[in-house]
Amino acid sequence: MRAQNLTLLTDLYELTMMQGYYENPSDQIVVFDAFYRKNPCGGAYAVCAGLEQVIEYVRDLHFSPDDIDYLRSLHIFNDDFLEYLRGFHFTGDIYAIPEGTVVFPREPLLKVVAPIMEAQLVETAILNMINHQSLIATKASRVVYAAKGDGIMEFGLRRAQGPDAGIYGARAAMIGGCIGTSNVLTGQMFEVPVKGTHAHSWIMSFPDEYTAFKTYAKMYPEACILLVDTYDVLASGVPNAIRVFKEMRAEGLPMKGYGIRIDSGDLAYLSKKAYQMLEAEGFGDAIISASSDLDEYLIDSLKTQGAKINSWGVGTNLITSGDWPAFGGVYKLAAAKDKDDAEFTPKIKLSENSEKVTNPGNKTIYRIYDKETGKIRADLICLADETFDESKDMIIFDPIETWKKTKIKGGTYTLRELLVPIFQKGACVYTSPSVMEIRDICTREKDTLWEESKRLVNPHEVYVDLSDKLYHIKSDLLEEMSMKALGEQ
Amino acid sequence: MRAQNLTLLTDLYELTMMQGYYENPSDQIVVFDAFYRKNPCGGAYAVCAGLEQVIEYVRDLHFSPDDIDYLRSLHIFNDDFLEYLRGFHFTGDIYAIPEGTVVFPREPLLKVVAPIMEAQLVETAILNMINHQSLIATKASRVVYAAKGDGIMEFGLRRAQGPDAGIYGARAAMIGGCIGTSNVLTGQMFEVPVKGTHAHSWIMSFPDEYTAFKTYAKMYPEACILLVDTYDVLASGVPNAIRVFKEMRAEGLPMKGYGIRIDSGDLAYLSKKAYQMLEAEGFGDAIISASSDLDEYLIDSLKTQGAKINSWGVGTNLITSGDWPAFGGVYKLAAAKDKDDAEFTPKIKLSENSEKVTNPGNKTIYRIYDKETGKIRADLICLADETFDESKDMIIFDPIETWKKTKIKGGTYTLRELLVPIFQKGACVYTSPSVMEIRDICTREKDTLWEESKRLVNPHEVYVDLSDKLYHIKSDLLEEMSMKALGEQ
Repeated sequence: MRAQNLTLLTDLYELTMMQGYYENPSDQIVVFDAFYRKNPCGGAYAVCAGLEQVIEYVRDLHFSPDDIDYLRSLHIFNDDFLEYLRGFHFTGDIYAIPEGTVVFPREPLLKVVAPIMEAQLVETAILNMINHQSLIATKASRVVYAAKGDGIMEFGLRRAQGPDAGIYGARAAMIGGCIGTSNVLTGQMFEVPVKGTHAHSWIMSFPDEYTAFKTYAKMYPEACILLVDTYDVLASGVPNAIRVFKEMRAEGLPMKGYGIRIDSGDLAYLSKKAYQMLEAEGFGDAIISASSDLDEYLIDSLKTQGAKINSWGVGTNLITSGDWPAFGGVYKLAAAKDKDDAEFTPKIKLSENSEKVTNPGNKTIYRIYDKETGKIRADLICLADETFDESKDMIIFDPIETWKKTKIKGGTYTLRELLVPIFQKGACVYTSPSVMEIRDICTREKDTLWEESKRLVNPHEVYVDLSDKLYHIKSDLLEEMSMKALGEQ
Repeated sequence: MRAQNLTLLTDLYELTMMQGYYENPSDQIVVFDAFYRKNPCGGAYAVCAGLEQVIEYVRDLHFSPDDIDYLRSLHIFNDDFLEYLRGFHFTGDIYAIPEGTVVFPREPLLKVVAPIMEAQLVETAILNMINHQSLIATKASRVVYAAKGDGIMEFGLRRAQGPDAGIYGARAAMIGGCIGTSNVLTGQMFEVPVKGTHAHSWIMSFPDEYTAFKTYAKMYPEACILLVDTYDVLASGVPNAIRVFKEMRAEGLPMKGYGIRIDSGDLAYLSKKAYQMLEAEGFGDAIISASSDLDEYLIDSLKTQGAKINSWGVGTNLITSGDWPAFGGVYKLAAAKDKDDAEFTPKIKLSENSEKVTNPGNKTIYRIYDKETGKIRADLICLADETFDESKDMIIFDPIETWKKTKIKGGTYTLRELLVPIFQKGACVYTSPSVMEIRDICTREKDTLWEESKRLVNPHEVYVDLSDKLYHIKSDLLEEMSMKALGEQ
């Protein structure tokens, strides 16, 4: 869909490093993991999203003549390297967890196995896309959870951080479970339902509120949601809406999908009063829609207060993930080998913060499901070539507090490998499902979480553990690297 | 630059309302104001930005055959209206405050005067662009303020909310005062400086840290900032960096723009210790750059602690405006007239919250400068046809607490009209300055603020008042509308 070439959507240092590898020839094939460290919004899970856009980006990677000219103008790149860039394309492998899957901290959502120059270039754009859409899909999932079955509409385009944040944010919000978006371009690009009725300006451009409502009802009798808070919800908006609904009923219209929207004021009080007024006139089945700086906590609170709202439009706080506006995904070198080596050498990054020490090696992830309930027992990060026998007991290690071990009895679990091949030798081998299919996947995925992991506040964390083999590689490497650092004093 | 057609980057309700106006023919010419109600991040001002992108969007507005087909597929638009859309283009006027200007709540940053259908369509995209870029320009201005003259580099692309948030966010960050961005595409598109050196993966892909530093220094002797926190800042990173700097010095290199970057740990402690180690070897002029989840408050605190940092890379919290991720701009109908009327009729939107009551009428804004100091005394919102004589006393009204009046003595002030023509009868009459020129404008603009309005916490608000004439129109209209609402009970 996007005509703009995004190859230069990268940090300058990716290019200076690439030139470094070009000038100091490196035949290294490397493994980079994209993962995150902390669940957004204090939750116990995230919903991964953005892979389709990563695929488009990687497929389209090329330096145009304009790009080369621009890079030359910076006077930091030499002609040989620029000539190399002219012929650049991605030749490596990418593995990823399919969009809509529930995921947890420290597990690679995406893994790049490629010559070091290629793997380095793609870091920034991959993180940008995965970070953004995973954030919004996760936030949407929380908002949908709070609404307990009511529909959530994504209404945030005007407050999104630029056009793409609106377009792809709405895509991610649909994946997270919204029933529609106001964003027409997202509707067109991704075949998702678009929703919306009218604004205060519609009401204000007519001589009075009743005439505005009446005109709207005549035009859209089957989606007649009237905005009742332009002047005074209970004194003017609801009475005028009821007058129009009565006229619609008298004309024998089917009265489907009709109702009101309240966009300001005390939503609990106003919705209850509005419901009483509607119900008294036989309109107890009217949709009562609310939209006013909502988020998952406000919706939860309004539900608890018994607000008579059954449809929610969520804008700013969903499209920006207001209380947690960055996903924090990182892209770290995990292993390297010379081109002709058989085996990867694991790599580790130390940190004063043990949470930030990386997991080394060329890895994959198995999800361990409880055989009886289908719920997730834990995720297991292990080396890519490890195999497991579901009939046998399994011992897994907490990756940070490694004295914490868990034994899972053979025969009580099933395994699923989460990372699937996306690119092989530069060719895309994966077909993205449609957004509405990913939305269904996500709904089923959330069913694999225990209730305790879905709640909004202080949820139960899901275990992400290391295999015995990976645990020992990590321990040995930590020991070796810390000794080496001391030795270099 | 952008090939994608953004005409459908709008909320569905703009189109359903447009069809409403089409079917119930309205010759109304309307005035819409885009303004915001609250300064971001608890500050006393905002920096407006995004106008260049609004201009491109409005210029390019057209419904492609694909767009028409898509809208037809929704089964809510009839053929006549779709035929009208096929020939649609913008024919109205737009006025705006130039990018880089410091602005305040409730004053129109942009005003659309156009046939109602056109003015309605452009609401969402205009708000999206102005909201996003004004937010990031404002945040950048705060971060730059905290750094007290040190350079701020924008490093947030990987954490931005999608590609555009990275691209245009970096543009806005430059406007707000950053000295460069890591985002190469923004550099290419807007001719702004790009910055960056290497990542941890560069260090990790060499057999040891020294070799990695040495290789980098050979390639980029004139921008040799070495990342020292891959293994251990003080035990390994800084000693290895000093070894390389000594070798560079021994080779007779000019030692310009060299130094270290610390990306984790206690930046106050580490920077002081690193400085001592560097200084002891004659490298007291080395750049010490820091980058680790920084924002204006952390930079301010590090400065207070005497951290020896003189260059700052700011990522996540700048590119997302972490503590205040939405600007909250709105677009409200202010006046309307029939096509052949001479005068606009002011329109007002009531609200239970007096902050949300709009300012009616076709308006403009004058900035009142103190003649002696050049500082802003107040902004005055008035009707577009009002004129003022700088030699005469001026009485201005607080728009909410209207009993608060201020008298400004004639001869002590100068006036500047903030809104300038951008489109006239659909034609663009404005040429955007370059981003670096806008950045200069913004620097001069910030000089017109009193120090007390620039501080990070609890700053002094700048007065935005109403003219006598506008105040009385607003009062009368409020009275009339509230009586009318009661009458409709």
